[in-house]
Amino acid sequence: MTDPHDFTRRLQKDNGSKIVFVIADGLGGLPQAPGGKTELETAITPNLDALARRGTLGLSIPVLPGIAPGSGPGHLGLFGYDPVKYEIGRGVLEALGIDFALGPNDVAIRGNFCTIDEEEKITDRRAGRISSEIGAQLSAKLNQIRIPGVEVFVRAGEGHRTVVIFRGPDLGGDVQDTDPQATGVPALEPLARSDGSEKTASIAQQFLSQAKDLLKDDAPANFLTLRGIDKLPHIPPFSEVYGMRAGAIAVYPMYRGLARLVGMNILDAGHTLDEQMSQLEAAWNDHDFFFIHWKYTDSSGEDGNFSLKVQRTEELDAAIPRVTALNPTVIVVTGDHSTPSTMKSHSWHPVPTLIAAETCRFDGSTGFGESHCLRGGLGQFEAKHLMLLAMAHAGRLEKYGA
Amino acid sequence: MTDPHDFTRRLQKDNGSKIVFVIADGLGGLPQAPGGKTELETAITPNLDALARRGTLGLSIPVLPGIAPGSGPGHLGLFGYDPVKYEIGRGVLEALGIDFALGPNDVAIRGNFCTIDEEEKITDRRAGRISSEIGAQLSAKLNQIRIPGVEVFVRAGEGHRTVVIFRGPDLGGDVQDTDPQATGVPALEPLARSDGSEKTASIAQQFLSQAKDLLKDDAPANFLTLRGIDKLPHIPPFSEVYGMRAGAIAVYPMYRGLARLVGMNILDAGHTLDEQMSQLEAAWNDHDFFFIHWKYTDSSGEDGNFSLKVQRTEELDAAIPRVTALNPTVIVVTGDHSTPSTMKSHSWHPVPTLIAAETCRFDGSTGFGESHCLRGGLGQFEAKHLMLLAMAHAGRLEKYGA
Repeated sequence: MTDPHDFTRRLQKDNGSKIVFVIADGLGGLPQAPGGKTELETAITPNLDALARRGTLGLSIPVLPGIAPGSGPGHLGLFGYDPVKYEIGRGVLEALGIDFALGPNDVAIRGNFCTIDEEEKITDRRAGRISSEIGAQLSAKLNQIRIPGVEVFVRAGEGHRTVVIFRGPDLGGDVQDTDPQATGVPALEPLARSDGSEKTASIAQQFLSQAKDLLKDDAPANFLTLRGIDKLPHIPPFSEVYGMRAGAIAVYPMYRGLARLVGMNILDAGHTLDEQMSQLEAAWNDHDFFFIHWKYTDSSGEDGNFSLKVQRTEELDAAIPRVTALNPTVIVVTGDHSTPSTMKSHSWHPVPTLIAAETCRFDGSTGFGESHCLRGGLGQFEAKHLMLLAMAHAGRLEKYGA
Repeated sequence: MTDPHDFTRRLQKDNGSKIVFVIADGLGGLPQAPGGKTELETAITPNLDALARRGTLGLSIPVLPGIAPGSGPGHLGLFGYDPVKYEIGRGVLEALGIDFALGPNDVAIRGNFCTIDEEEKITDRRAGRISSEIGAQLSAKLNQIRIPGVEVFVRAGEGHRTVVIFRGPDLGGDVQDTDPQATGVPALEPLARSDGSEKTASIAQQFLSQAKDLLKDDAPANFLTLRGIDKLPHIPPFSEVYGMRAGAIAVYPMYRGLARLVGMNILDAGHTLDEQMSQLEAAWNDHDFFFIHWKYTDSSGEDGNFSLKVQRTEELDAAIPRVTALNPTVIVVTGDHSTPSTMKSHSWHPVPTLIAAETCRFDGSTGFGESHCLRGGLGQFEAKHLMLLAMAHAGRLEKYGA
């Protein structure tokens, strides 16, 4: 398997050009009835259409045909990191999602509060879906746990979810889940699955033992299970593999976390698209590459709200002139995956993609939408190759071979 | 990584069919303004258009999306050799470019004449860009160097460039460049970078020592640096991987060299397209596969001369009837990469490709150009798969599996 970074490491050059990635989460969609228009095609998007007319369109395949990615592999692919090569554990993703700055000595774990009976058998794997407020109180209680030789952090997630981090030397990340994925049986032991993770397993055991004591009067949330026990993957930094200073402008912590994972600078995104654009302008001179993340095309799709997703797409379109006004060498507009509102979930459908640059080959597109993209000059391509195309159009890649 | 040769070795058969590859170097282009026509679309090409109407079109990706290849990887891909797997060093390519018949015991090196001061520090890495005539005289002088145990060849390149070949047993090809890529510092030593190349490093050291004496009165070209020290890659021959006798008809030495590298017979190409076509006719019965190389679509593109590239494309078109008159089973017309005249350089843009054979599926194309190719039946495909398609249409591949 050819890794794009084998090329970018050798061929990168700095010519002072600027690349902007505008990522509309879950951008791709489906029509409400056969032959109809998708959310993006329904939206009135004069600014994206103008980019489409002078750019080249295509459809991005996030991982492989038929594979619907989560946010982690979806974004890694867009950033040019092979999502098959770099896997992000569930625990790591949860930690990124609460903006916890994970380090290389950290083991991150997703905890689920659960209910156990007097025989310690699990009766409810989600503790009656307690509120986030109660979950936060219980997480604060567990944050008092002390274990010799490591630091322990417990941070609230949503509802019955919590995030546990062990920080210390020689902690492997290969420990099995304690959630038995069933009720009527006890939680499993946190067993090491390979050499080098025994210490982590032992610490998890001590943590669970103390947690059982601390939570014994907190039914229905009188225990917790541990899942997705993992460490940060070894991801080479953006600056090394591409030779660019990258800035991330994302409102949601998960996406800041993913950007941090690949070594981008995390810029203050405020709370609105206007504030994101102001940050883009402010940070313009200090970066070569920008990642702008727009969440609401995904969340409206997840909610099954077709018209809201149309509206959220139009809001993004209205912000595009502030990008083009900066005259970036390359503008890319795409998503990390599709989220058709008819499916209320991430899907595998290829993602509409637009590259606008002076070196684009004309493909006859007159607007930005799935149908135009299907006939676009980029064809259908693997998302991990998008960075290569963006760098090529930016003049940031030398010729390969003589 | 799937290697096309894993299939062709197993599935090849000889049915007496003929395949002709007409390679227009740098064929792909860009319009002069968005919405305009490319060079190929502007050219009046009735003969190529006729092939397009009865053939199938597509766009070839030379290496990976966004990667602009040099001539070496570009042609290896067309010949079905994975350009990521087979890398050709700079020295080897220089030797091929002057038609030097490299053998398996040869180490090829690109030399650059340079200027050094009395402290042996480099003051000009290109020796004031001396003329090719002076460079040839100095190369002839260095060609007198004798080193026990090896043969030494020094051949003139263009201007300040020269090509040095050491021929002998046990010469590794992994020696570092002596060009420090800077002035004000001495040249580097030719150090072996891995076991097995110490002998080569030692010979390079002796060569440089003698060269310094011979050139000491030849300022500004009073020394030389050595770059791209390398041996021929191990490339399995065309006859073995495809079971075809291939003939190359290329006017420029570089392309004869690349064809020789994959084991083609090098045929006398003369100097004109007419002479190339006459050779095609003369050699017709003795070969199964022909590689015809047309340089000027690339050189006119490199010069930024849109209208000259159009004209050079039309000249190629005018020669096509002499190919079709021979009634080859399969005709392929494509390029090794794009060279848009607006960019004056090789580019990564996918390359227009045409296959004409009786077994072609109709794709509705009415002419040969980037827009037709974008909508063509071959879609966008990796160049290394083109040989598989050509052999299939020629009836030269058995069914895979039962």
